[in-house]
This record gives sequence, C-alpha cells and structure tokens, in this order.
Amino acid sequence: MITLYGYWRSSAAYRVRIALNLKKIKHELISVHLVKDGGQQHSESYVKLNPNHLVPTLVDGDFSLNQSLAIIDYLDESFTNVSLYPSNIKDKALVRALACDLACEIHPLNNLRVLQYLSNQLNISDDQKTAWYHHWILEGFSALELRLAKTAGQYCFGDSVTVADLCLIPQIYNAKRFNVDMSVFPLINKIEHNCSLLPEFIAAIPENQADAS
Amino acid sequence: MITLYGYWRSSAAYRVRIALNLKKIKHELISVHLVKDGGQQHSESYVKLNPNHLVPTLVDGDFSLNQSLAIIDYLDESFTNVSLYPSNIKDKALVRALACDLACEIHPLNNLRVLQYLSNQLNISDDQKTAWYHHWILEGFSALELRLAKTAGQYCFGDSVTVADLCLIPQIYNAKRFNVDMSVFPLINKIEHNCSLLPEFIAAIPENQADAS
Repeated sequence: MITLYGYWRSSAAYRVRIALNLKKIKHELISVHLVKDGGQQHSESYVKLNPNHLVPTLVDGDFSLNQSLAIIDYLDESFTNVSLYPSNIKDKALVRALACDLACEIHPLNNLRVLQYLSNQLNISDDQKTAWYHHWILEGFSALELRLAKTAGQYCFGDSVTVADLCLIPQIYNAKRFNVDMSVFPLINKIEHNCSLLPEFIAAIPENQADAS
Repeated sequence: MITLYGYWRSSAAYRVRIALNLKKIKHELISVHLVKDGGQQHSESYVKLNPNHLVPTLVDGDFSLNQSLAIIDYLDESFTNVSLYPSNIKDKALVRALACDLACEIHPLNNLRVLQYLSNQLNISDDQKTAWYHHWILEGFSALELRLAKTAGQYCFGDSVTVADLCLIPQIYNAKRFNVDMSVFPLINKIEHNCSLLPEFIAAIPENQADAS
C-alpha cells in the first residue's frame, strides 16, 4: 500500500498526486497541515519520517522517500504502465531539464519556509514579498516560454504528458494564486489548458483535496 | 566533442565537472564569467544557448542541455563505463532524493542571483546576508546528516560514489567559503575527506580551473 504525506497547497505534493493518478496507483493521502499547530511538518512523528520538515513523503511498505522529483522517478521506474518520460536519452534529458527549471529555479525560492524567513527574519513588507514572488516566477517562466517554443506540442514536450507538465501545472497554480500576469506566456497557457482537460490533473487540484480549507 | 559552459565557482558546474572526470569523458571547458562584464551569462550569445542566464550548459554536437542534474543523468545514461547511481530502483531513488536535498533545497537559495537580489532589491545588510546563507546550509546539512546516518558508507550512499556526492562536495565548498561551522557534521566531513582523495574530485575543484582568479 502506498501512502503520500502531503498538503493540499504544496506544489511538490501536487506534482506527485498527478503522477499517482496518471499511473492509476492505489494510494492513501495523509494531510500534514503546513500552517495549523505551528506547522505539522515540524511534529516529532513527521520529522522522524522526514527530517527536512518538508512535504511530500511517500511511504511504500517499509520504504520511505522524500523529494518530489525522486518520488516521481521512483514511481515511474516501479510502475511502468504509463511512462512520464520520452524513451530517447536526449529527449528524456530535455524533459528532466524542463522539470528542473521549475523545481530547482522557481519553486524553492517561493516555498512557504522562505516566505516565512523573509517576513520574520528580514521583516520585509508584503509588497516586497509579492515582488520577490513575482520576480522568480517571471524570470523562470520567461525562459521556459522560450524553451517550450522548441519542445512543446500539446504538452511541454511533444504530445505526451511528461514530468515537465507535472511540475508546470502546480507552478502555474501558485502564480495565479499570487496574481502574476500570465497573459505574456501563450505557450504555457496553452499547455495549462490542455492539462486542465485531463481527469488525472483535475483530481490533483488543491481545492479538490480532502484537507483543502 | 563535448563542451561544458561553466564557471570555476559555480557549484552546479562543479558537479558536472566531477561527473565528466569520473566517466573519463573527453571535453572542453568554456568559462562564462558570472561577475566580469556585468555577468557574461547575460551576454546575447550565451542567452541564445541558455535563456535562463545560468550555468552550466552542456553541448554535445548539435544537442545542448541545461540544468546540472539533467546533464549528469544524460551523461550517466550516455556513458555507461562508470555508473553514478546504484542499480536497485529503491537505492537509486534514495540517492536521487539526497541529490535533490542539496540541489533543490539548499543551493537555489544561496545562488549568486539570489544574493544579488537580497542586496540590491531588498537592501539587506551583509550580516543579514551571511545569516541567510548560513541558515539554509545549516537547515539542509542538519537534515542530511540524519539521512546519511542511514545511507552512508565511505560516501553518501554506501561505498560507491554517486550523484549525491557530486552535489555534496560543491555545497561543502560553498559552506566553507562562507565560514559555516562544519564541526557539527561528522558524517558529512568524513565523506568530504574520502572524496578529497579522489583525483576526479581534485581536478574539479574551483581553484584548479583555468578561469579561477
């Protein structure tokens, strides 16, 4: 039995939910509320499972694993019914690079703990925090839009859903939540539209989770 | 012919240099100076190659690829003389998670462009910037030390060098450069010592690069 410890609004958990749905893997979702109780990710029991105090964590029998990209690759290699990468080595590398453009360059800078540090340790204003948030998304999406001009079909890479789409959709969700102007990214918007039609993506939307509030 | 566009002090480029050395891949290094000329990563010719304005970029014939983790995986799948991952799916996933703990949780927060934003846009003091830098390394290394207690042998995962070591060593280099107290991380220090004996790691050290200044 596979269990995913996550949080409705965590974009890293959102990525993994899409993967579980696409691969039709039976699983249980356990909510780790990142705000309630001072953040349940800091609870003694959760930190034993994940000393980084971060979601998600996947538990598969007696095997536990953190880091969304590592989890998605683990699921991809363990459940081969649907592949989340192209088979060609070069194409696979390009998909992985697109995923890292999102997961290593944009998301880490706008994560909850970083925003908390900016407010609590650096005492920056809400306007400065919004500018920070927008800055990294606009920088990242501007570069991504140029890359997608070379790789995209219906999705980030050609006409099959890949790990890149699993990283892009949660990042767009965050961008919209913080009112980033998305009108300048036509390719990103097209891919979002195409993914929004797929039931596996719909079921993974934060507002469709049991712990959404 | 393989060409790596990098910079002596870029830890993402440093990771790839180690991989190229371990796999004994003949290659050329081209320096993109991140400070000189206002940052050569912003030059028109480089941005055509890498619209993210970041190093490294690998060029293999007419194929170009960004993102150090994607590059390392591409090299690992293309040159199979030495493997940078364990063969077992679960072990491989754990190594990938360790690499992401470093490459997605620590490094992006302490990257040059982020430090520049903190100074130029948020006007924080040098002391605050040092505290920021130390904070993310100490958070990340504290969790990593606990994980290594379960996985480490001579290196991060057992007794073979993996991608996790390729990410760890450059991160330690940065930590020392910014005078982080490393005495509280005995396992990390042991692994650093063991890697420091390997010629492939020695040749990749920033100060041993032609563009070091």
